Amino acid sequence: MARAAAVSPTTVSHALNNRGYVDPRTREKVRRTAQELGYRPNVRAQRLRAGSAQTVGLVASMPTSIAAGPSKLGFFMEVAASAAETALMHGFAMILVPPLETQLELGQFDIDGAVVVEPEENDPATTRLRALGVPVVSLGRQPGAESEIPYIDLHSHETGELLLNHLHGQGSRKIALMIGSGLRHSYIDVAAAYSDFVSAHGLESIVIRLDEHEGEAGGYRAALALLESHPDVDGICALVDAFAVGVVRGLQEKGRKVPEDVRVVTRYNGLRAQTCKPALTAVNLNLGTAADLAVNLLLEHREGNTSRHVVSGPPQELVERASSVIP
Amino acid sequence: MARAAAVSPTTVSHALNNRGYVDPRTREKVRRTAQELGYRPNVRAQRLRAGSAQTVGLVASMPTSIAAGPSKLGFFMEVAASAAETALMHGFAMILVPPLETQLELGQFDIDGAVVVEPEENDPATTRLRALGVPVVSLGRQPGAESEIPYIDLHSHETGELLLNHLHGQGSRKIALMIGSGLRHSYIDVAAAYSDFVSAHGLESIVIRLDEHEGEAGGYRAALALLESHPDVDGICALVDAFAVGVVRGLQEKGRKVPEDVRVVTRYNGLRAQTCKPALTAVNLNLGTAADLAVNLLLEHREGNTSRHVVSGPPQELVERASSVIP
Repeated sequence: MARAAAVSPTTVSHALNNRGYVDPRTREKVRRTAQELGYRPNVRAQRLRAGSAQTVGLVASMPTSIAAGPSKLGFFMEVAASAAETALMHGFAMILVPPLETQLELGQFDIDGAVVVEPEENDPATTRLRALGVPVVSLGRQPGAESEIPYIDLHSHETGELLLNHLHGQGSRKIALMIGSGLRHSYIDVAAAYSDFVSAHGLESIVIRLDEHEGEAGGYRAALALLESHPDVDGICALVDAFAVGVVRGLQEKGRKVPEDVRVVTRYNGLRAQTCKPALTAVNLNLGTAADLAVNLLLEHREGNTSRHVVSGPPQELVERASSVIP
Repeated sequence: MARAAAVSPTTVSHALNNRGYVDPRTREKVRRTAQELGYRPNVRAQRLRAGSAQTVGLVASMPTSIAAGPSKLGFFMEVAASAAETALMHGFAMILVPPLETQLELGQFDIDGAVVVEPEENDPATTRLRALGVPVVSLGRQPGAESEIPYIDLHSHETGELLLNHLHGQGSRKIALMIGSGLRHSYIDVAAAYSDFVSAHGLESIVIRLDEHEGEAGGYRAALALLESHPDVDGICALVDAFAVGVVRGLQEKGRKVPEDVRVVTRYNGLRAQTCKPALTAVNLNLGTAADLAVNLLLEHREGNTSRHVVSGPPQELVERASSVIP
């Protein structure tokens, strides 16, 4: 290859890898020659020498029934698009480890680090990655591992306040909270916000915990049970969008009007929230920005710069829709 | 590591890589010991020896303005979720190369093959990958490279027939086709279907070509221009969803009712189609299945099994919505 382009091997390497100084015309000649010859530098051998795969992983923690759902257009994929872009801007490829029903052996991936999306307490993915010596950053703190795993703080207490104050402002006075039974930061923090909220307003506390795997069907059944135990419920904060869609269906089947009789809100402003009938009030979490922050934090830690352990996530905004606003 | 677990190095390798026979208790012991020691087999060195990165790439061809768009929940990410899952099931990681405004040097990726999503004629991504000697499969044929690049046939002629026959069935008799100016299989095949359609029904042919980068704004402007030149237009097949959303806005601003005065349909049944007001009639392309087929075809070719060059894509279904169906 160097002979064909009539330059030194070092020049070839610099020209093809954008390193050092190479005369632009020489660079062009090397590239053209490389293309003509179908020359492909041994990327793998280069990386073995450099001790870096130049690859990061994006790892889902949610079960498929929630993270992906209809058309697989969920929270995780919204994060993935931005994370991949940010990683590429830094010269890193991004491997996607989407939500799968079976547990993967994460040791099979040659990665320099991983962003884990909203891990649960004792999350098996972060545990395994750390055992493998792979730097990990979580998008949303991992409960119980706050001091060990650097994270982007998604401010879920604020999310809870936004949603609950909105329901109150729309006139709801008997408000149920529906969250997943796992220990994720969003459930824990919104439950805390709910507890403060009902105390401050002197309201009854109605907390329903559902297995995330139950998805929409779980929300539907929980709504029917809630109407039995609390027929006068007039607001439901169903944190998981799949739950919320099931809740709306359950309410409507029992003759309750949404939003006139019962106002319903959810957290993630995704396809489910936007296509539910009526469309669901939700929170714009600015996940693209959050994903960028997570990749940047990961690359910092990978380079040994551990000065930032917690990075404040992007601002969030309530998106009011017909599920909670009486026209 | 082998010493700590009191087994042979071969047993360690077999136990950690699920190869050969290892007594389940021994396997468990090896894994436990590996975890305690933080032992990580040198995946990179293993792969260098094996001559395989066990990684495939998913490469976007569309510009960001179309493929990603609002909340980055587009066609490409829908393909990505399923492709990553299928690749993982075969023991391959998947690197995401999302739509970027800047051209990437694809030689930086250590991949065994790539799926390119709907490449244009002379697409730079497939050209570069093939120059690098990377096996490529395209999701949707690449015009002009049909005999060189194996592909999943997305049957866009059928897509066009579905959409156009639907408009005709809803009473439209002056139907405009709005497509991208690039040479993608979908534009070419739908244009051919349109040509057959207007001939068969003795209708006027109105074809508008727009630069994909113009997105929604392009569709909006084109709709205004169309109302000037053809004020009696009563159906628009705007193939790109971003165009279609702009078209609806343009029509409504000029006092046309959608669907009563003008019926509008689009191709991709994504977030844009589903959240447009009114929601857009679109085609369910079963992209998850198409992505699975593409990854499987790629892995076949990578293994030297080139018996299948074209694989028929999944069936498609029209999803009728308020943009074209008079209530």
